[in-house]
Amino acid sequence: MPFHFIEEYQRGYGLNLQIEKILHVEQSKYQHIVVFSTMSHGVVLILDNCIMTTEKDEFYYHEVLAHTPMQAAREPRRVLIIGGGDGGTAREVLRYTGVEKVDMIEIDEKVIEVSKRFMPGLSCAFDDPRLNLMIGDGVKYIRDCKEKYDCVIVDSTDPIGPAIALFSEPFYSNCCRILVDEGAFSAQTESPLFQRDAMASIYRNLNRAFPRLDPYFSPVPSYGGLWSYALGTKGKNPTTIEGWEIDFDLKYYNESVHLGMFHVPNDMKEITGRD
Amino acid sequence: MPFHFIEEYQRGYGLNLQIEKILHVEQSKYQHIVVFSTMSHGVVLILDNCIMTTEKDEFYYHEVLAHTPMQAAREPRRVLIIGGGDGGTAREVLRYTGVEKVDMIEIDEKVIEVSKRFMPGLSCAFDDPRLNLMIGDGVKYIRDCKEKYDCVIVDSTDPIGPAIALFSEPFYSNCCRILVDEGAFSAQTESPLFQRDAMASIYRNLNRAFPRLDPYFSPVPSYGGLWSYALGTKGKNPTTIEGWEIDFDLKYYNESVHLGMFHVPNDMKEITGRD
Repeated sequence: MPFHFIEEYQRGYGLNLQIEKILHVEQSKYQHIVVFSTMSHGVVLILDNCIMTTEKDEFYYHEVLAHTPMQAAREPRRVLIIGGGDGGTAREVLRYTGVEKVDMIEIDEKVIEVSKRFMPGLSCAFDDPRLNLMIGDGVKYIRDCKEKYDCVIVDSTDPIGPAIALFSEPFYSNCCRILVDEGAFSAQTESPLFQRDAMASIYRNLNRAFPRLDPYFSPVPSYGGLWSYALGTKGKNPTTIEGWEIDFDLKYYNESVHLGMFHVPNDMKEITGRD
Repeated sequence: MPFHFIEEYQRGYGLNLQIEKILHVEQSKYQHIVVFSTMSHGVVLILDNCIMTTEKDEFYYHEVLAHTPMQAAREPRRVLIIGGGDGGTAREVLRYTGVEKVDMIEIDEKVIEVSKRFMPGLSCAFDDPRLNLMIGDGVKYIRDCKEKYDCVIVDSTDPIGPAIALFSEPFYSNCCRILVDEGAFSAQTESPLFQRDAMASIYRNLNRAFPRLDPYFSPVPSYGGLWSYALGTKGKNPTTIEGWEIDFDLKYYNESVHLGMFHVPNDMKEITGRD
């Protein structure tokens, strides 16, 4: 058992994944990309030395990131995805037959290529004719955007390197600007266990940008246990579910889970500005 | 950085903790006990090669195991704890000034000794005069028990070795028998990520033993992310909070968290018998 990948969450503490076979290694224009297979998690995608997606438990993340705003918004027909190059978020959004168009803008086409090649369970929706896939800078796209969306979903990497601007107040304000009044925005907002300083800064920006901002929490085992997300709206109560009916099978998310995610634990009140 | 402890959740997948100093190694009558210090998690207690408690994140587990039944029961004055040798569950229960007596029965006095010596933040309630600490077999105690309790809390190790009987239907039925009508029972019921077969068996037993049984889920990072618990009652709705008011500081648990924990994700419905 010679090859192991260790994601060190903090000094002296990390997750240990035994590698079965290294499938792909590449330095793209934006990040270092590695794909390997494992016995425990199927195929794993690593970006800049961080676990981005594993075939085994990606559904925890993608279902919660995508269906929460899709259910909070009123029958969302037009959706924008920023990032999400592995395809998992697009797959979830396109499960709804009522969705008419999904604009998706991903900065690194190499991530899309490796997902298509090695993770068909994630990239399966890239051929959907309702998906308009663009390669480019999401920050610029959203700054210049004249359209309106029912849902805007930010599926980004960590706030380092190319993704930093995807956590800024101007970016979040532009996301809010292009939302319809009954729409909903979601973004991943890092680990409440290991990135609390980053989270505090992210939530300062989010709380300024949205008339109503609700943090929510859900498990993602390969991200260290618990993960945080934000739901931004123009005043809608997130516990009011108004999206399309879920008439397809999901592994984790359901209406009951939705209602349970918005309860803020004591140790996360201050960093999300709930005090 | 030579010494590491790796808890392998499944083959090829585990948590990696760097050891600062090994503080104690002992084979007790019942289990192998190791205590070491870490940079990331303070002092860590290992029983039979499994992480039992870490100073850093024990509160996720103990608060949720103890306060959930304490809040579901009506003003609980008499509490029974089975296991819980590190003292964390007793500490939580004894925070309520309304609690009059806590009977605690732990099989391995060596666990209590190492907790007193190395983990004062956990063992701090052992000197409380309301605590009646007994060294013995919880299964026998509860089988022969003639008393009634407002709360019964099972804080056990995994269902291997000495703890197997703590997951059986006769044991759970006896726990139910000694509960008052308005009382509440809680038990840890293993990892919904890595011990699903064990969970399915545990929930078959629990569902038979209690008139009303509600699974609940909450994060414990050092247990692999997510952990499961069961609340057993004689028919009470667990979302009705009737316990003593919480007038002390907790790190994680609050009323809002309580209400959110009972939502059962899709991938946990079958194993907990909710279908």
